[in-house]
Amino acid sequence: MKNVPFSDVRVTGGFWKQKQDLVRSVTINAVYDRFKESGRFDAFRFDPEGTGIRPHVFWDSDAAKWLESVAYLTAQQKDPALEAKADELIDEIAAHQAEDGYFNLYFQQIEPEKRFTDRGKHELYCLGHLIEAAVAYYKATGKKKLLDCVEKYTDFVYDLFVVRDGASFVTPGHEEIELALISLYRLTRNKKHLELCRFFLDERARHPDRDPGAARLGMKYNQSHLPVREQRTAVGHAVRACYLYSGMADFAKETGDKEMEEACRALFDDIVNTKLYITGGIGACHVGERFGAAYYLPNDTAYAETCAGISLAMFASRMQQFSSDVRLADTIERVYYNNVLSGLSQDGEGFFYVNPLELAPQAIKVMQENGQPVPRSRRPKIFSCSCCPPNITRMIPTFQQYAYTVSEDTVYVHQFLDSEATVAVGGRTVTLRQETDYPVSGKVKLTVKGYTGKLAVRVPSWSSEYAEEKKDGYLRFDVAGDAEISLDFKPAAELIAADPRVSDDCGRVAVCRGPVVYCLEEADNGPMLRDVRISADGIFAEGPSDEFGLPVLLTEGWRSESEGGLYRPYTGSLKKVPLRFIPYQAFANREEGEMVVWVLVKE
Amino acid sequence: MKNVPFSDVRVTGGFWKQKQDLVRSVTINAVYDRFKESGRFDAFRFDPEGTGIRPHVFWDSDAAKWLESVAYLTAQQKDPALEAKADELIDEIAAHQAEDGYFNLYFQQIEPEKRFTDRGKHELYCLGHLIEAAVAYYKATGKKKLLDCVEKYTDFVYDLFVVRDGASFVTPGHEEIELALISLYRLTRNKKHLELCRFFLDERARHPDRDPGAARLGMKYNQSHLPVREQRTAVGHAVRACYLYSGMADFAKETGDKEMEEACRALFDDIVNTKLYITGGIGACHVGERFGAAYYLPNDTAYAETCAGISLAMFASRMQQFSSDVRLADTIERVYYNNVLSGLSQDGEGFFYVNPLELAPQAIKVMQENGQPVPRSRRPKIFSCSCCPPNITRMIPTFQQYAYTVSEDTVYVHQFLDSEATVAVGGRTVTLRQETDYPVSGKVKLTVKGYTGKLAVRVPSWSSEYAEEKKDGYLRFDVAGDAEISLDFKPAAELIAADPRVSDDCGRVAVCRGPVVYCLEEADNGPMLRDVRISADGIFAEGPSDEFGLPVLLTEGWRSESEGGLYRPYTGSLKKVPLRFIPYQAFANREEGEMVVWVLVKE
Repeated sequence: MKNVPFSDVRVTGGFWKQKQDLVRSVTINAVYDRFKESGRFDAFRFDPEGTGIRPHVFWDSDAAKWLESVAYLTAQQKDPALEAKADELIDEIAAHQAEDGYFNLYFQQIEPEKRFTDRGKHELYCLGHLIEAAVAYYKATGKKKLLDCVEKYTDFVYDLFVVRDGASFVTPGHEEIELALISLYRLTRNKKHLELCRFFLDERARHPDRDPGAARLGMKYNQSHLPVREQRTAVGHAVRACYLYSGMADFAKETGDKEMEEACRALFDDIVNTKLYITGGIGACHVGERFGAAYYLPNDTAYAETCAGISLAMFASRMQQFSSDVRLADTIERVYYNNVLSGLSQDGEGFFYVNPLELAPQAIKVMQENGQPVPRSRRPKIFSCSCCPPNITRMIPTFQQYAYTVSEDTVYVHQFLDSEATVAVGGRTVTLRQETDYPVSGKVKLTVKGYTGKLAVRVPSWSSEYAEEKKDGYLRFDVAGDAEISLDFKPAAELIAADPRVSDDCGRVAVCRGPVVYCLEEADNGPMLRDVRISADGIFAEGPSDEFGLPVLLTEGWRSESEGGLYRPYTGSLKKVPLRFIPYQAFANREEGEMVVWVLVKE
Repeated sequence: MKNVPFSDVRVTGGFWKQKQDLVRSVTINAVYDRFKESGRFDAFRFDPEGTGIRPHVFWDSDAAKWLESVAYLTAQQKDPALEAKADELIDEIAAHQAEDGYFNLYFQQIEPEKRFTDRGKHELYCLGHLIEAAVAYYKATGKKKLLDCVEKYTDFVYDLFVVRDGASFVTPGHEEIELALISLYRLTRNKKHLELCRFFLDERARHPDRDPGAARLGMKYNQSHLPVREQRTAVGHAVRACYLYSGMADFAKETGDKEMEEACRALFDDIVNTKLYITGGIGACHVGERFGAAYYLPNDTAYAETCAGISLAMFASRMQQFSSDVRLADTIERVYYNNVLSGLSQDGEGFFYVNPLELAPQAIKVMQENGQPVPRSRRPKIFSCSCCPPNITRMIPTFQQYAYTVSEDTVYVHQFLDSEATVAVGGRTVTLRQETDYPVSGKVKLTVKGYTGKLAVRVPSWSSEYAEEKKDGYLRFDVAGDAEISLDFKPAAELIAADPRVSDDCGRVAVCRGPVVYCLEEADNGPMLRDVRISADGIFAEGPSDEFGLPVLLTEGWRSESEGGLYRPYTGSLKKVPLRFIPYQAFANREEGEMVVWVLVKE
């Protein structure tokens, strides 16, 4: 089973076209401008005295992800101005790469004597992102300069870590290079790239003396507590974890390593069964940006970093190389329509790093005074640790990468977006056309031309259509030549409950419509949203889609009486109120106020 | 209106006799032993080199509160062994008091040159507790030695602070001495004692340059943000706050200061209307042990320090010197039957400092890893900051101090306990006998002998009896000579709701029976208690009282199905389960596990 790359799928309209146009017209430049203002690009001039810029240890990765984003946008539609900016940056990298191949903004300019002495300082993570950018930029433009740089740097790293054992640590403190090396290997077929990946995976947790964890959170923080093949439980920093698992999955696919594949399956199961927010967010804890224990999924203090959601989708997508387990595509859908899209403001210029499932400005104020980490209630334009914005710019323009996989005899359709795909299957090239405004409606028309073989179309787990026909979550079609298939998954407002072990969600439901999680905001419904009850019947009317690109949901609910004193005999007396739910992905785009996803249900 | 002192009320049986007997037979000695082991008593030998004991700045107050407790116990029933220990301690104090009158374990032994240079170091707080102990011990035993010591020390403080302005700061960082000075003044009628109290009250917040707040929490932390007469909102450290408000109320009573009285009324209203847990706990925030904003009353992270509840009852009791506002007695009742009694284990040897309204050991573990302050799930025998245990030993044996007040023509009965009181009213001495097992039942038989005048008996706010007859919460009787009044307030299980602005309690109810708040524990009901629903009808059977001295409450409730995946379509399918509620005051006395006060209600 192989993923069909984003570049073989042209997005032609609908929901994702709008999001991608926003990133192309606004976000990619907004991120460039903020990075420019903050010195992230000028740091590549290697003139700390002149510019006064002291680069942070992860700035290379910010710029690299921006470059990678440009590659993805350029691959789909030329943009000479963007490409010129990218080339300029690449020229600086090439000009300042050390003789031996090393490249790092911080260590070359600030502490050159400390190269590869501190596992916590992100050098290999930065290289990973440079590799991803180089591979993407080469594929998009045919330009090899950055690819040459990263190959040279990778050779240096191979020699230093594998041949000479000459660094202070053995494996990266922040994983990412593992998956990047497979990506590089798939392009170069240079065995050293695969070997280096194997080395970083298999040496992990075998050198506790040299590979420290986090001071307070220990070896679990960066998944160094157990050899990766023995890991079964997702722990520690969520982005690191899923980047690692993605690398493990890629490696298993490339080498046929069943043990590694088995670990990946168990880790994926652990996440989706016990550690996943309904929005697709992962990493419940602010402290350590990490997974909590099973079922520890608080709403108001949820971390659910945008990058973590993205990393989970990356992991799930790589697991699709092994099977068409429908939970993989369901998870990608859950993550993208909620946790990832909530990471970007409606105007395309603001970003959430943390994506809470509940906002209560008054409580946040007290928690701030307490010194507790709290969510932001507005999307800033940049963060000092700004990994999320350029992850948004590289992932929204490539959502179509998750749409298809191909096995020997079957084309799988996992995600729905108005598009035209060119898919190589059974030695032939097939054109697949999707016409859909999904998820506004659930209507999908698939047109296949010149294909004789099998087609499997996912029935989203939220849909109650096709219950009889589907098998393992997919509808199977035998196509002979041309075919036209019209489906309708009929998204409608539905109440979703959580496992009762998720203590914050007890007695509450989330309102979903298709893959989209909804929420109540103060702007529509006034304050005290945790007091709102909705009916167990869950009867909703759909309001207009113009404000958020998706329909709002209207219903009647109840509130308790405000009057009566701090504590009063329970009367059950409630008053009816109209309620307006909006897509969670669009929360916090209006005036500041409360927000809740999980709403009380009147049973 | 005057409070009838505890010493004029003899507890003869019932609920409080049992609690008081436990303190007398176990707790007072357990606290002594733990304090002895920790060096708190040997520190009074003033031999830091010899003993190796480095006293903490608040150790004086721990010992003083133990002394005060001994006074209260001794006043009610001689105990030569206890009194000998107390005398020994007092001898040490007298022997080591400085020539000029100063006395402090820490500063005399460790940093003698730093006396009164740091507002945060509790010297005046310690003196306050020594004064309270001295007054109590003198009244109990007639022995003057400690009283002489504190009078001499108070003279020194008056001279230093009022006459010479010779300390680095102007008013105490931790209030307490204000109320102690009124207590001393009422005994000595020495105007300087009243003057010193006035000075500490009126100079508060007038010297921001010399009277610092807390580094992170500022001037509100110790109520130094506004002149006390202008304060209307309870802020900062809850114990400090209510000790201050108690001192203000005492001062207002003693001087007729209406402005001060008005501030006290507003502060009391603010607390009971917006910042009070249903258990009587105050101070929602661990950080700063302080009040949160209005309606910020989280259950799992509730601080609700035992001492804070006690301080609120002290404040309410002092407000009873102005009026028979029934909310005062109601609040004292709420605090004592829940927040205070939960501070002591069933065996009389363990103490809660923090009294949460919800325990979830699994979540606590994650929060601990997060470095968040979390409640303890077991009662330890001592704390490094051990203010609560000797507050328990001084307050439980004197609960009867809240039972009566007397105005010119009326005897008020506020609290119910099996007892015999001797009350001076209208120039005569009246005997009041209460026969009751309150709050096991609500039956109270009052027998008054030789009294012609008015009697006002509180109808507890939770009782729906006497709704027609009561006026401002009290039943009024004209007594001529002897009288016998039989009442029954009929406590029964009742569901209580909170103001919807208390976001943690939305959709939930607390089960109360009379003044006693109940809870569910895992030991009886299994885990996942936040998922339990009870019926809006609230039909309960009363189980036996033998285990907790109060009946358990039995009902049927519902739980949702555990199976079905992390997120599943809401079906409303629930299964019936038997539920056993126990008094909140008795939680965490069995195996460790979950506990909830606020339970979902099926509407």
